[in-house]
Amino acid sequence: MLLCVRGFRLWAARRAAPGGPGVSRDLLSRAGELDRYGGLSVHLARIGALQDLDTTAFRKLLLATMQQWRSEGRTAVWLHIPIQQSRFIAPAASLGFCFHHAESDSSTLTLWLGEGPSRLPGYATHQVGVAGAVFDESTRKILVVQDQDKLKNMWKFPGGLSEPGEDIGDTAVREVFEETGIKSEFQSLLSIRQQHTSPGAFGKSDMYIICRLRPYSFTIDFCPHECLRCEWMDLNDLAKTENTTPITHRVARLLLYGYREGFDKIDFTMEELPAVHTGLFYKLYHKELPESYKTMTGMD
Amino acid sequence: MLLCVRGFRLWAARRAAPGGPGVSRDLLSRAGELDRYGGLSVHLARIGALQDLDTTAFRKLLLATMQQWRSEGRTAVWLHIPIQQSRFIAPAASLGFCFHHAESDSSTLTLWLGEGPSRLPGYATHQVGVAGAVFDESTRKILVVQDQDKLKNMWKFPGGLSEPGEDIGDTAVREVFEETGIKSEFQSLLSIRQQHTSPGAFGKSDMYIICRLRPYSFTIDFCPHECLRCEWMDLNDLAKTENTTPITHRVARLLLYGYREGFDKIDFTMEELPAVHTGLFYKLYHKELPESYKTMTGMD
Repeated sequence: MLLCVRGFRLWAARRAAPGGPGVSRDLLSRAGELDRYGGLSVHLARIGALQDLDTTAFRKLLLATMQQWRSEGRTAVWLHIPIQQSRFIAPAASLGFCFHHAESDSSTLTLWLGEGPSRLPGYATHQVGVAGAVFDESTRKILVVQDQDKLKNMWKFPGGLSEPGEDIGDTAVREVFEETGIKSEFQSLLSIRQQHTSPGAFGKSDMYIICRLRPYSFTIDFCPHECLRCEWMDLNDLAKTENTTPITHRVARLLLYGYREGFDKIDFTMEELPAVHTGLFYKLYHKELPESYKTMTGMD
Repeated sequence: MLLCVRGFRLWAARRAAPGGPGVSRDLLSRAGELDRYGGLSVHLARIGALQDLDTTAFRKLLLATMQQWRSEGRTAVWLHIPIQQSRFIAPAASLGFCFHHAESDSSTLTLWLGEGPSRLPGYATHQVGVAGAVFDESTRKILVVQDQDKLKNMWKFPGGLSEPGEDIGDTAVREVFEETGIKSEFQSLLSIRQQHTSPGAFGKSDMYIICRLRPYSFTIDFCPHECLRCEWMDLNDLAKTENTTPITHRVARLLLYGYREGFDKIDFTMEELPAVHTGLFYKLYHKELPESYKTMTGMD
């Protein structure tokens, strides 16, 4: 390792010669931004002098900088690399860096420098799918579809994957409209399924949420690319049919219970609350809480 | 573009000369595996002849192959690139590819070749955090902590991020034990919060779930790296204190309601069900369904 550092010094001296691009040894460390956990973030896009650097020179520079970071007691380094500068990924990997994540036109590599195993937080672990159980109380009919290309002849609720930043209820309403042409509004969250290593999730986990929706249009205009069939079915029939998935079967019976005994028996309702410290809002779902408990009036 | 293809032919002819490495023009297309959506997956790690290819040659090869894929009506291409071969990322990006995801020692790039906007499924969009509300019914005490480095003086439930492939309840039990030394078992799911652009989620969304746990050990031995304080607090006190986060405040009152009126009023219980077609099992959470509804006996 010492040899490499010496090599770097020679190279740095050459590069820093008059008229050269002048890549200084502390180029990377100067660009590092300290986080509150003792880690450093380095955004290569913000370092103009890297533009013409070749991979061998980058490796030497990084190796020398890593020595410095270690001596300063840094716990971790994050390298943010624009996709056009991806030539720097392999040399960083040869020094122990690995991918934390990548998306669109940028990747992020990490190296744990602290003691023991890495304590760095992981990246997103779940995709979120949402289905809408659109139930018309006045007719006791529920909106169901059969998929075009999988689970043929199995009645299920229309649904699909949440888009980035999309709220659960919004996904349900959007997917129902895209698949069936039915307009609806969010009422409650009925069930959550967690599944790991599910097909189509790129090795990640899947959270599948079924919402209860109330329709405000009733004429079906289904998407032939996604659906083979789509209809308003009597809820009793859906609760009894064999031609459905276990989860649809179960939620149909749950809905029947709610229809007969009150939806408050089955609903997680939604409320928007302020996040601590960030100025953002979030949506919170749980069983409806009586007003007296929310305010704690008259309680001791 | 035609010029490039011609250039590629010249180059391919040179490379394929006797004694050369023999990189044939259909190297990438032969390695492509067709998926059921009309897309192609190409795993560069499985193509030995790429080992010594430089980036210019790779770009020409890829460009020519893209022409072929387009003429064959392919809708999308997935390039799986080992981290050591990341020199091929920038040339692919210059032809329109971008990162779909990357993890550990591999990245995956995609290019949409179909009509209209890309219909490729996205990658995982959510991290999942789980907290445990460990409630001892016999003493009406609830286990609460104060964080070491954030939200000082705010009582909250112990918890943390799910590890890859970890079930919700298992995360709650693990995090409670790691933070407080208390052993517990999963009872139910009480609330779900969805938040976007939350700090520490790398631009992704956050799903935060609070579970009700039952303790079976009671002596606190808290982790001083994570917790400033940890104690068994009377549930009434937690429901009334100002020194807590809005979500803890709310769930404390929800628990009080459940404690007084029956936990069936607030619980989503869990059941394991078989997945369709995959031979896997998943966990499903919803309001407890009376047995008569599960079996539909005596219902018409």
